[in-house]
Amino acid sequence: MVVMAHHLINAPHRLFSLGTFVELLGAAKSTISEDLGFMRQAFDRFSLGKVETLAGAAGGVRYLPYHQRERIRTLVEDVCRRLRDPSRLLPGGFLYTADLISTPYVAAQFGEAFATFFEDSRPDVVLTMEVKGIPLALMTARAFDVPLVTIRRGAHPTDGPAVSVNYVSGSSRMVQAMTLPLRAIRQGARVLFIDDFLRGGGTARGVYDLMREFRAEVVGIGVLIETPLPREKMIDRYVSLIQFQGVNEQGEVLITPSRAILESAATR
Amino acid sequence: MVVMAHHLINAPHRLFSLGTFVELLGAAKSTISEDLGFMRQAFDRFSLGKVETLAGAAGGVRYLPYHQRERIRTLVEDVCRRLRDPSRLLPGGFLYTADLISTPYVAAQFGEAFATFFEDSRPDVVLTMEVKGIPLALMTARAFDVPLVTIRRGAHPTDGPAVSVNYVSGSSRMVQAMTLPLRAIRQGARVLFIDDFLRGGGTARGVYDLMREFRAEVVGIGVLIETPLPREKMIDRYVSLIQFQGVNEQGEVLITPSRAILESAATR
Repeated sequence: MVVMAHHLINAPHRLFSLGTFVELLGAAKSTISEDLGFMRQAFDRFSLGKVETLAGAAGGVRYLPYHQRERIRTLVEDVCRRLRDPSRLLPGGFLYTADLISTPYVAAQFGEAFATFFEDSRPDVVLTMEVKGIPLALMTARAFDVPLVTIRRGAHPTDGPAVSVNYVSGSSRMVQAMTLPLRAIRQGARVLFIDDFLRGGGTARGVYDLMREFRAEVVGIGVLIETPLPREKMIDRYVSLIQFQGVNEQGEVLITPSRAILESAATR
Repeated sequence: MVVMAHHLINAPHRLFSLGTFVELLGAAKSTISEDLGFMRQAFDRFSLGKVETLAGAAGGVRYLPYHQRERIRTLVEDVCRRLRDPSRLLPGGFLYTADLISTPYVAAQFGEAFATFFEDSRPDVVLTMEVKGIPLALMTARAFDVPLVTIRRGAHPTDGPAVSVNYVSGSSRMVQAMTLPLRAIRQGARVLFIDDFLRGGGTARGVYDLMREFRAEVVGIGVLIETPLPREKMIDRYVSLIQFQGVNEQGEVLITPSRAILESAATR
Protein backbone atom coordinates (compact mmCIF):
# COMPACT_ATOMS: atom_id res chain seq x y z
CA MET A 1 0.00 0.00 0.00
CA VAL A 2 2.85 2.43 0.77
CA VAL A 3 4.39 1.66 -2.60
CA MET A 4 1.17 2.70 -4.33
CA ALA A 5 1.01 5.77 -2.08
CA HIS A 6 4.56 6.67 -3.16
CA HIS A 7 3.70 6.47 -6.85
CA LEU A 8 0.47 8.42 -6.51
CA ILE A 9 1.83 11.19 -4.25
CA ASN A 10 4.98 11.66 -6.30
CA ALA A 11 3.03 12.18 -9.51
CA PRO A 12 -0.07 14.16 -8.55
CA HIS A 13 -2.91 14.12 -11.07
CA ARG A 14 -1.32 11.30 -13.07
CA LEU A 15 -3.61 8.41 -13.90
CA PHE A 16 -2.22 4.97 -13.03
CA SER A 17 -4.06 1.92 -14.35
CA LEU A 18 -4.74 -0.75 -11.75
CA GLY A 19 -2.80 -3.05 -14.08
CA THR A 20 0.36 -1.06 -13.40
CA PHE A 21 0.13 -1.86 -9.71
CA VAL A 22 -0.96 -5.47 -10.31
CA GLU A 23 2.20 -5.97 -12.33
CA LEU A 24 4.51 -3.99 -10.06
CA LEU A 25 3.36 -5.58 -6.82
CA GLY A 26 2.32 -9.02 -8.03
CA ALA A 27 -0.96 -8.68 -6.16
CA ALA A 28 -4.50 -9.47 -7.24
CA LYS A 29 -6.59 -6.67 -8.71
CA SER A 30 -9.14 -7.09 -5.91
CA THR A 31 -6.42 -6.60 -3.28
CA ILE A 32 -5.18 -3.48 -5.07
CA SER A 33 -8.70 -2.08 -5.23
CA GLU A 34 -9.29 -2.79 -1.57
CA ASP A 35 -6.02 -1.12 -0.56
CA LEU A 36 -6.84 1.93 -2.66
CA GLY A 37 -10.15 2.11 -0.82
CA PHE A 38 -8.36 2.18 2.52
CA MET A 39 -6.00 4.82 1.20
CA ARG A 40 -8.88 6.97 0.02
CA GLN A 41 -10.52 6.78 3.44
CA ALA A 42 -7.29 7.61 5.27
CA PHE A 43 -6.57 10.61 3.00
CA ASP A 44 -10.17 11.82 3.42
CA ARG A 45 -10.04 11.50 7.17
CA PHE A 46 -6.78 13.45 7.49
CA SER A 47 -7.59 15.95 4.70
CA LEU A 48 -4.58 14.97 2.61
CA GLY A 49 -6.20 15.36 -0.79
CA LYS A 50 -8.33 13.01 -2.87
CA VAL A 51 -7.64 9.52 -4.19
CA GLU A 52 -9.89 9.26 -7.23
CA THR A 53 -10.77 6.06 -9.05
CA LEU A 54 -11.98 6.31 -12.64
CA ALA A 55 -13.87 3.30 -14.01
CA GLY A 56 -13.73 1.87 -17.52
CA ALA A 57 -11.03 0.78 -19.96
CA ALA A 58 -9.24 4.14 -19.83
CA GLY A 59 -9.69 4.21 -16.07
CA GLY A 60 -7.36 3.93 -13.16
CA VAL A 61 -6.50 5.81 -10.03
CA ARG A 62 -4.94 9.20 -9.38
CA TYR A 63 -4.07 11.46 -6.51
CA LEU A 64 -5.43 15.00 -6.50
CA PRO A 65 -3.53 17.18 -4.01
CA TYR A 66 -6.46 19.51 -3.28
CA HIS A 67 -6.56 21.27 0.04
CA GLN A 68 -9.55 22.08 2.16
CA ARG A 69 -10.29 25.80 2.16
CA GLU A 70 -9.67 25.96 5.89
CA ARG A 71 -6.18 24.57 5.38
CA ILE A 72 -5.44 27.11 2.64
CA ARG A 73 -6.55 29.88 4.97
CA THR A 74 -4.23 28.61 7.69
CA LEU A 75 -1.33 28.54 5.21
CA VAL A 76 -2.06 32.06 3.97
CA GLU A 77 -2.43 33.47 7.49
CA ASP A 78 0.85 31.89 8.50
CA VAL A 79 2.66 33.39 5.51
CA CYS A 80 1.06 36.81 6.12
CA ARG A 81 2.32 36.69 9.70
CA ARG A 82 5.83 36.05 8.46
CA LEU A 83 5.61 38.78 5.81
CA ARG A 84 4.55 41.34 8.44
CA ASP A 85 8.07 41.27 9.90
CA PRO A 86 9.24 44.92 9.58
CA SER A 87 12.75 43.80 8.60
CA ARG A 88 11.23 42.73 5.28
CA LEU A 89 10.53 46.32 4.29
CA LEU A 90 12.85 47.56 1.57
CA PRO A 91 13.63 51.05 0.30
CA GLY A 92 10.86 52.16 -2.07
CA GLY A 93 8.08 50.50 -0.07
CA PHE A 94 8.82 47.05 -1.46
CA LEU A 95 8.50 43.89 0.60
CA TYR A 96 11.15 41.18 0.54
CA THR A 97 9.31 37.96 -0.31
CA ALA A 98 11.85 36.02 -2.43
CA ASP A 99 13.04 33.73 0.37
CA LEU A 100 9.57 32.60 1.40
CA ILE A 101 8.14 32.00 -2.05
CA SER A 102 11.31 30.15 -3.11
CA THR A 103 11.16 27.75 -0.17
CA PRO A 104 10.15 24.51 -1.87
CA TYR A 105 7.72 23.36 0.81
CA VAL A 106 5.94 26.73 0.90
CA ALA A 107 5.86 26.98 -2.90
CA ALA A 108 4.43 23.46 -3.07
CA GLN A 109 1.66 24.34 -0.60
CA PHE A 110 0.75 27.42 -2.64
CA GLY A 111 0.88 25.39 -5.84
CA GLU A 112 -1.62 22.95 -4.37
CA ALA A 113 -3.75 25.86 -3.17
CA PHE A 114 -3.86 27.28 -6.73
CA ALA A 115 -4.65 23.81 -8.06
CA THR A 116 -7.58 23.69 -5.64
CA PHE A 117 -8.93 27.09 -6.73
CA PHE A 118 -8.53 26.22 -10.43
CA GLU A 119 -9.65 22.60 -10.10
CA ASP A 120 -12.39 23.07 -12.72
CA SER A 121 -10.29 24.98 -15.26
CA ARG A 122 -8.42 21.85 -16.43
CA PRO A 123 -5.28 23.60 -17.76
CA ASP A 124 -2.99 21.97 -20.34
CA VAL A 125 -0.15 24.19 -19.28
CA VAL A 126 0.80 26.60 -16.49
CA LEU A 127 2.29 29.87 -17.68
CA THR A 128 4.34 32.38 -15.70
CA MET A 129 6.46 35.46 -16.23
CA GLU A 130 10.13 35.30 -15.24
CA VAL A 131 11.50 35.32 -12.51
CA LYS A 132 10.05 35.37 -9.03
CA GLY A 133 6.81 33.55 -9.80
CA ILE A 134 8.54 30.49 -11.26
CA PRO A 135 8.62 28.38 -8.07
CA LEU A 136 4.90 28.95 -7.44
CA ALA A 137 4.04 28.25 -11.07
CA LEU A 138 6.19 25.12 -11.23
CA MET A 139 4.55 23.71 -8.13
CA THR A 140 1.10 24.53 -9.54
CA ALA A 141 2.07 22.75 -12.77
CA ARG A 142 3.27 19.81 -10.67
CA ALA A 143 -0.10 19.59 -8.89
CA PHE A 144 -1.83 19.43 -12.31
CA ASP A 145 0.84 17.20 -13.95
CA VAL A 146 1.20 19.66 -16.83
CA PRO A 147 4.26 21.49 -18.23
CA LEU A 148 5.40 24.89 -17.03
CA VAL A 149 6.07 27.58 -19.63
CA THR A 150 7.98 30.74 -18.73
CA ILE A 151 7.55 34.03 -20.57
CA ARG A 152 10.73 36.05 -20.79
CA ARG A 153 11.54 39.71 -21.15
CA GLY A 154 13.46 40.47 -24.32
CA ALA A 155 14.63 37.96 -26.92
CA HIS A 156 16.74 34.85 -26.25
CA PRO A 157 18.55 33.17 -29.14
CA THR A 158 18.77 29.86 -27.27
CA ASP A 159 14.99 29.58 -27.40
CA GLY A 160 14.60 29.87 -31.17
CA PRO A 161 11.87 31.68 -33.10
CA ALA A 162 9.59 33.54 -30.74
CA VAL A 163 6.53 35.77 -30.50
CA SER A 164 6.75 39.11 -28.70
CA VAL A 165 4.04 41.48 -27.52
CA ASN A 166 4.36 44.78 -25.74
CA TYR A 167 2.72 45.42 -22.41
CA VAL A 168 2.50 48.23 -19.90
CA SER A 169 4.13 47.33 -16.63
CA GLY A 170 1.60 48.41 -13.98
CA SER A 171 4.15 49.61 -11.49
CA SER A 172 6.57 51.48 -13.75
CA ARG A 173 4.06 52.54 -16.44
CA MET A 174 6.73 51.65 -18.96
CA VAL A 175 6.14 49.73 -22.16
CA GLN A 176 8.10 46.47 -22.17
CA ALA A 177 8.21 43.37 -24.36
CA MET A 178 7.33 39.81 -23.32
CA THR A 179 8.53 36.92 -25.43
CA LEU A 180 7.64 33.27 -25.78
CA PRO A 181 9.14 30.65 -28.15
CA LEU A 182 6.77 29.76 -30.98
CA ARG A 183 6.81 26.11 -30.05
CA ALA A 184 6.17 26.66 -26.35
CA ILE A 185 2.36 26.55 -26.53
CA ARG A 186 0.20 24.71 -29.03
CA GLN A 187 -2.89 26.14 -30.64
CA GLY A 188 -6.04 25.65 -28.59
CA ALA A 189 -4.19 25.00 -25.33
CA ARG A 190 -5.89 25.83 -22.04
CA VAL A 191 -3.52 28.10 -20.15
CA LEU A 192 -3.42 28.93 -16.44
CA PHE A 193 -1.31 32.01 -15.65
CA ILE A 194 0.35 32.08 -12.21
CA ASP A 195 2.42 35.00 -10.92
CA ASP A 196 3.75 36.25 -7.63
CA PHE A 197 2.49 39.82 -7.74
CA LEU A 198 -0.28 41.89 -9.33
CA ARG A 199 -0.52 45.65 -9.09
CA GLY A 200 -2.16 47.17 -12.15
CA GLY A 201 -2.59 43.92 -14.04
CA GLY A 202 -0.51 45.07 -17.02
CA THR A 203 1.46 41.85 -17.15
CA ALA A 204 -1.69 39.73 -17.02
CA ARG A 205 -3.23 41.93 -19.74
CA GLY A 206 -0.14 41.28 -21.86
CA VAL A 207 -0.54 37.54 -21.27
CA TYR A 208 -4.04 37.71 -22.78
CA ASP A 209 -2.61 39.50 -25.83
CA LEU A 210 0.23 37.02 -26.13
CA MET A 211 -2.09 34.01 -25.85
CA ARG A 212 -4.31 35.45 -28.57
CA GLU A 213 -1.28 35.27 -30.90
CA PHE A 214 -0.86 31.60 -29.96
CA ARG A 215 -4.62 30.97 -30.36
CA ALA A 216 -4.57 29.62 -26.84
CA GLU A 217 -7.15 30.20 -24.13
CA VAL A 218 -6.44 31.76 -20.74
CA VAL A 219 -8.60 29.66 -18.40
CA GLY A 220 -7.46 31.28 -15.18
CA ILE A 221 -5.16 33.82 -13.53
CA GLY A 222 -3.81 33.27 -10.06
CA VAL A 223 -1.49 35.61 -8.15
CA LEU A 224 0.00 35.26 -4.73
CA ILE A 225 -0.05 38.93 -3.68
CA GLU A 226 -2.08 41.85 -5.00
CA THR A 227 -2.25 45.49 -4.01
CA PRO A 228 -5.61 47.24 -3.54
CA LEU A 229 -4.36 50.19 -5.62
CA PRO A 230 -4.88 51.02 -8.39
CA ARG A 231 -8.50 49.99 -7.81
CA GLU A 232 -9.10 49.63 -11.55
CA LYS A 233 -7.08 46.63 -12.73
CA MET A 234 -6.41 45.97 -16.39
CA ILE A 235 -8.03 42.54 -16.09
CA ASP A 236 -11.38 41.50 -14.65
CA ARG A 237 -11.05 38.03 -13.26
CA TYR A 238 -8.25 36.61 -11.20
CA VAL A 239 -7.71 34.90 -7.87
CA SER A 240 -5.30 36.39 -5.36
CA LEU A 241 -4.37 34.83 -2.04
CA ILE A 242 -2.83 37.78 -0.19
CA GLN A 243 -3.44 41.52 -0.14
CA PHE A 244 -0.59 43.95 0.54
CA GLN A 245 -1.89 47.38 1.49
CA GLY A 246 1.47 49.00 2.15
CA VAL A 247 2.85 50.43 5.38
CA ASN A 248 1.00 52.57 7.94
CA GLU A 249 2.31 55.57 9.87
CA GLN A 250 3.61 53.34 12.66
CA GLY A 251 5.74 51.52 10.11
CA GLU A 252 3.64 48.36 10.32
CA VAL A 253 3.36 46.16 7.23
CA LEU A 254 -0.32 45.84 6.30
CA ILE A 255 -0.78 42.45 4.75
CA THR A 256 -3.79 40.16 5.04
CA PRO A 257 -5.43 37.17 3.39
CA SER A 258 -7.36 38.28 0.31
CA ARG A 259 -11.14 38.35 0.15
CA ALA A 260 -11.16 35.10 -1.86
CA ILE A 261 -9.48 33.34 1.06
CA LEU A 262 -11.67 34.84 3.76
CA GLU A 263 -14.91 34.21 1.89
CA SER A 264 -14.18 30.71 0.64
CA ALA A 265 -13.11 29.59 4.09
CA ALA A 266 -16.36 30.92 5.54
CA THR A 267 -18.64 29.23 3.03
CA ARG A 268 -17.07 25.79 2.91
CA MET B 1 0.75 3.87 7.41
CA VAL B 2 -0.28 5.71 4.21
CA VAL B 3 -0.80 8.87 6.24
CA MET B 4 2.79 8.68 7.48
CA ALA B 5 3.94 7.93 3.93
CA HIS B 6 2.11 11.05 2.75
CA HIS B 7 3.84 13.27 5.29
CA LEU B 8 7.28 11.82 4.66
CA ILE B 9 7.11 11.82 0.85
CA ASN B 10 5.64 15.31 0.66
CA ALA B 11 8.45 16.79 2.75
CA PRO B 12 11.61 14.95 1.70
CA HIS B 13 14.54 15.22 4.10
CA ARG B 14 12.39 16.70 6.86
CA LEU B 15 12.73 15.04 10.24
CA PHE B 16 9.43 14.05 11.88
CA SER B 17 9.52 12.97 15.51
CA LEU B 18 7.67 9.76 16.25
CA GLY B 19 5.65 11.82 18.72
CA THR B 20 4.17 13.78 15.79
CA PHE B 21 2.71 10.61 14.36
CA VAL B 22 1.66 9.25 17.76
CA GLU B 23 -0.35 12.41 18.28
CA LEU B 24 -1.70 12.67 14.72
CA LEU B 25 -2.78 9.06 14.44
CA GLY B 26 -3.58 8.24 18.06
CA ALA B 27 -1.50 5.06 17.78
CA ALA B 28 1.10 3.60 20.14
CA LYS B 29 4.73 4.44 19.55
CA SER B 30 5.52 0.74 19.07
CA THR B 31 2.91 0.48 16.30
CA ILE B 32 4.32 3.58 14.59
CA SER B 33 7.84 2.15 14.75
CA GLU B 34 6.69 -1.17 13.37
CA ASP B 35 4.84 0.50 10.49
CA LEU B 36 7.89 2.62 9.67
CA GLY B 37 9.91 -0.60 9.53
CA PHE B 38 7.50 -2.06 6.99
CA MET B 39 7.66 1.15 4.99
CA ARG B 40 11.45 1.12 4.99
CA GLN B 41 11.46 -2.45 3.69
CA ALA B 42 8.92 -1.70 0.97
CA PHE B 43 10.81 1.41 -0.20
CA ASP B 44 14.08 -0.56 -0.21
CA ARG B 45 12.59 -3.40 -2.16
CA PHE B 46 11.12 -1.15 -4.86
CA SER B 47 14.07 1.32 -4.87
CA LEU B 48 11.90 4.27 -3.89
CA GLY B 49 14.45 6.03 -1.70
CA LYS B 50 15.37 5.61 1.94
CA VAL B 51 13.29 5.84 5.10
CA GLU B 52 15.83 6.74 7.77
CA THR B 53 15.25 6.56 11.50
CA LEU B 54 17.46 8.63 13.80
CA ALA B 55 17.61 7.59 17.44
CA GLY B 56 17.80 9.82 20.50
CA ALA B 57 15.95 12.82 21.85
CA ALA B 58 16.46 14.88 18.67
CA GLY B 59 15.63 11.82 16.61
CA GLY B 60 12.75 10.85 14.40
CA VAL B 61 12.18 9.64 10.89
CA ARG B 62 12.73 11.17 7.47
CA TYR B 63 12.44 10.24 3.84
CA LEU B 64 15.49 10.65 1.58
CA PRO B 65 14.49 10.58 -2.10
CA TYR B 66 17.79 9.16 -3.31
CA HIS B 67 17.82 7.18 -6.54
CA GLN B 68 19.86 4.17 -7.40
CA ARG B 69 22.56 4.99 -9.96
CA GLU B 70 20.98 2.60 -12.43
CA ARG B 71 17.71 4.50 -12.21
CA ILE B 72 19.49 7.84 -12.77
CA ARG B 73 21.15 6.38 -15.84
CA THR B 74 17.80 5.24 -17.22
CA LEU B 75 16.35 8.72 -16.65
CA VAL B 76 19.32 10.42 -18.33
CA GLU B 77 19.27 8.04 -21.31
CA ASP B 78 15.56 8.61 -21.78
CA VAL B 79 16.01 12.39 -21.75
CA CYS B 80 18.98 12.15 -24.16
CA ARG B 81 16.80 10.16 -26.54
CA ARG B 82 14.16 12.88 -26.44
CA LEU B 83 16.74 15.65 -26.90
CA ARG B 84 18.15 13.94 -30.00
CA ASP B 85 14.98 14.82 -31.92
CA PRO B 86 16.30 16.95 -34.85
CA SER B 87 13.29 19.30 -34.58
CA ARG B 88 14.90 20.56 -31.37
CA LEU B 89 17.79 22.11 -33.28
CA LEU B 90 17.61 25.89 -33.39
CA PRO B 91 19.41 28.45 -35.52
CA GLY B 92 22.89 29.02 -34.09
CA GLY B 93 23.41 25.40 -33.11
CA PHE B 94 21.33 25.71 -29.94
CA LEU B 95 19.13 22.92 -28.67
CA TYR B 96 15.58 23.55 -27.45
CA THR B 97 15.41 22.08 -23.95
CA ALA B 98 13.08 24.45 -22.09
CA ASP B 99 9.98 22.26 -22.38
CA LEU B 100 11.62 19.13 -20.99
CA ILE B 101 13.47 20.72 -18.09
CA SER B 102 10.36 22.68 -17.11
CA THR B 103 8.16 19.60 -16.95
CA PRO B 104 7.63 19.21 -13.21
CA TYR B 105 7.95 15.43 -13.11
CA VAL B 106 11.19 15.48 -15.14
CA ALA B 107 12.61 18.37 -13.11
CA ALA B 108 11.75 16.49 -9.90
CA GLN B 109 13.55 13.37 -11.10
CA PHE B 110 16.64 15.41 -11.94
CA GLY B 111 16.42 17.21 -8.61
CA GLU B 112 16.45 13.87 -6.83
CA ALA B 113 19.35 12.73 -9.02
CA PHE B 114 21.37 15.81 -8.00
CA ALA B 115 20.42 15.20 -4.37
CA THR B 116 21.80 11.68 -4.75
CA PHE B 117 25.09 12.87 -6.23
CA PHE B 118 25.49 15.58 -3.57
CA GLU B 119 24.16 13.49 -0.68
CA ASP B 120 27.34 14.05 1.35
CA SER B 121 27.66 17.79 0.71
CA ARG B 122 24.82 18.68 3.14
CA PRO B 123 23.88 22.05 1.59
CA ASP B 124 22.04 24.73 3.57
CA VAL B 125 20.79 26.32 0.38
CA VAL B 126 20.57 25.56 -3.34
CA LEU B 127 21.68 28.41 -5.59
CA THR B 128 20.93 28.92 -9.27
CA MET B 129 21.24 31.58 -11.96
CA GLU B 130 18.07 32.86 -13.57
CA VAL B 131 16.16 31.59 -15.62
CA LYS B 132 16.17 28.16 -17.19
CA GLY B 133 17.84 26.28 -14.36
CA ILE B 134 15.26 27.35 -11.76
CA PRO B 135 12.97 24.29 -12.04
CA LEU B 136 15.92 21.88 -11.66
CA ALA B 137 17.32 23.88 -8.76
CA LEU B 138 13.96 24.18 -7.01
CA MET B 139 13.42 20.45 -7.19
CA THR B 140 16.95 19.83 -5.90
CA ALA B 141 16.22 22.20 -3.01
CA ARG B 142 12.98 20.32 -2.39
CA ALA B 143 14.84 17.01 -2.18
CA PHE B 144 17.14 18.53 0.48
CA ASP B 145 14.38 20.54 2.23
CA VAL B 146 16.43 23.74 1.95
CA PRO B 147 15.60 27.14 0.38
CA LEU B 148 16.29 28.02 -3.23
CA VAL B 149 18.14 31.25 -3.95
CA THR B 150 18.21 32.71 -7.46
CA ILE B 151 21.00 34.94 -8.73
CA ARG B 152 19.81 37.60 -11.15
CA ARG B 153 21.38 39.56 -13.92
CA GLY B 154 21.37 43.30 -13.30
CA ALA B 155 19.88 45.07 -10.27
CA HIS B 156 16.30 44.72 -9.00
CA PRO B 157 14.90 47.38 -6.66
CA THR B 158 12.26 44.98 -5.30
CA ASP B 159 15.01 42.82 -3.82
CA GLY B 160 16.68 45.53 -1.75
CA PRO B 161 20.40 46.04 -1.10
CA ALA B 162 22.43 43.58 -3.15
CA VAL B 163 25.93 42.40 -3.96
CA SER B 164 27.10 42.31 -7.59
CA VAL B 165 30.12 40.66 -9.17
CA ASN B 166 31.19 40.63 -12.79
CA TYR B 167 31.71 37.40 -14.66
CA VAL B 168 32.68 36.33 -18.17
CA SER B 169 29.88 34.51 -19.90
CA GLY B 170 31.59 31.47 -21.44
CA SER B 171 29.49 31.45 -24.58
CA SER B 172 29.48 35.14 -25.45
CA ARG B 173 32.85 36.10 -23.90
CA MET B 174 31.12 39.20 -22.61
CA VAL B 175 31.50 40.61 -19.14
CA GLN B 176 28.17 40.63 -17.32
CA ALA B 177 27.02 41.29 -13.76
CA MET B 178 25.34 38.84 -11.41
CA THR B 179 23.44 40.13 -8.39
CA LEU B 180 22.14 38.66 -5.17
CA PRO B 181 20.30 40.42 -2.33
CA LEU B 182 22.50 40.89 0.74
CA ARG B 183 20.07 39.01 2.92
CA ALA B 184 19.70 36.03 0.58
CA ILE B 185 22.57 33.96 1.99
CA ARG B 186 23.96 34.00 5.51
CA GLN B 187 27.63 33.93 6.37
CA GLY B 188 29.08 30.42 6.54
CA ALA B 189 26.27 28.83 4.56
CA ARG B 190 26.99 25.66 2.60
CA VAL B 191 25.86 26.35 -0.97
CA LEU B 192 25.07 23.90 -3.76
CA PHE B 193 24.98 25.56 -7.20
CA ILE B 194 22.67 23.94 -9.78
CA ASP B 195 22.36 25.13 -13.38
CA ASP B 196 20.99 23.82 -16.66
CA PHE B 197 24.02 24.39 -18.87
CA LEU B 198 27.81 24.70 -18.61
CA ARG B 199 30.04 25.65 -21.50
CA GLY B 200 33.15 27.51 -20.35
CA GLY B 201 32.24 27.60 -16.67
CA GLY B 202 32.26 31.40 -16.48
CA THR B 203 28.97 31.54 -14.62
CA ALA B 204 30.12 28.95 -12.10
CA ARG B 205 33.39 30.85 -11.68
CA GLY B 206 31.35 33.97 -10.96
CA VAL B 207 29.35 32.05 -8.37
CA TYR B 208 32.57 31.25 -6.49
CA ASP B 209 33.49 34.96 -6.55
CA LEU B 210 30.02 35.96 -5.41
CA MET B 211 29.98 33.43 -2.58
CA ARG B 212 33.35 34.70 -1.37
CA GLU B 213 31.68 38.10 -0.86
CA PHE B 214 28.99 36.41 1.22
CA ARG B 215 31.62 34.35 3.12
CA ALA B 216 29.66 31.29 2.07
CA GLU B 217 31.11 27.98 0.92
CA VAL B 218 30.35 26.37 -2.44
CA VAL B 219 30.04 22.67 -1.53
CA GLY B 220 29.08 21.45 -4.98
CA ILE B 221 28.24 22.37 -8.56
CA GLY B 222 25.80 20.35 -10.61
CA VAL B 223 24.78 21.03 -14.19
CA LEU B 224 22.34 19.18 -16.39
CA ILE B 225 24.13 19.61 -19.72
CA GLU B 226 27.76 20.41 -20.49
CA THR B 227 29.64 20.78 -23.76
CA PRO B 228 33.05 19.12 -24.28
CA LEU B 229 34.44 22.38 -25.70
CA PRO B 230 36.20 24.44 -24.53
CA ARG B 231 38.16 21.61 -22.95
CA GLU B 232 39.60 23.95 -20.32
CA LYS B 233 36.75 24.96 -18.03
CA MET B 234 37.02 27.89 -15.65
CA ILE B 235 36.20 25.59 -12.73
CA ASP B 236 37.69 22.25 -11.70
CA ARG B 237 35.03 20.23 -10.01
CA TYR B 238 31.44 19.80 -11.02
CA VAL B 239 28.98 17.03 -11.83
CA SER B 240 27.21 17.02 -15.18
CA LEU B 241 24.55 14.53 -16.21
CA ILE B 242 24.49 15.01 -19.99
CA GLN B 243 27.07 15.88 -22.62
CA PHE B 244 26.06 17.81 -25.75
CA GLN B 245 28.71 17.51 -28.48
CA GLY B 246 26.89 19.47 -31.16
CA VAL B 247 25.61 18.32 -34.52
CA ASN B 248 27.40 16.07 -37.00
CA GLU B 249 27.53 16.38 -40.80
CA GLN B 250 24.39 14.27 -41.17
CA GLY B 251 22.53 16.79 -39.01
CA GLU B 252 22.24 14.38 -36.09
CA VAL B 253 22.20 15.78 -32.56
CA LEU B 254 25.09 14.28 -30.60
CA ILE B 255 24.01 14.05 -27.01
CA THR B 256 24.88 11.34 -24.50
CA PRO B 257 24.96 10.64 -20.77
CA SER B 258 28.04 12.24 -19.19
CA ARG B 259 30.99 10.22 -17.96
CA ALA B 260 29.80 10.64 -14.35
CA ILE B 261 26.59 8.81 -15.25
CA LEU B 262 28.24 6.02 -17.23
CA GLU B 263 30.93 5.39 -14.62
CA SER B 264 28.79 5.59 -11.53
CA ALA B 265 26.22 3.22 -13.01
CA ALA B 266 28.97 0.74 -13.80
CA THR B 267 30.60 0.80 -10.37
CA ARG B 268 27.54 0.59 -8.17
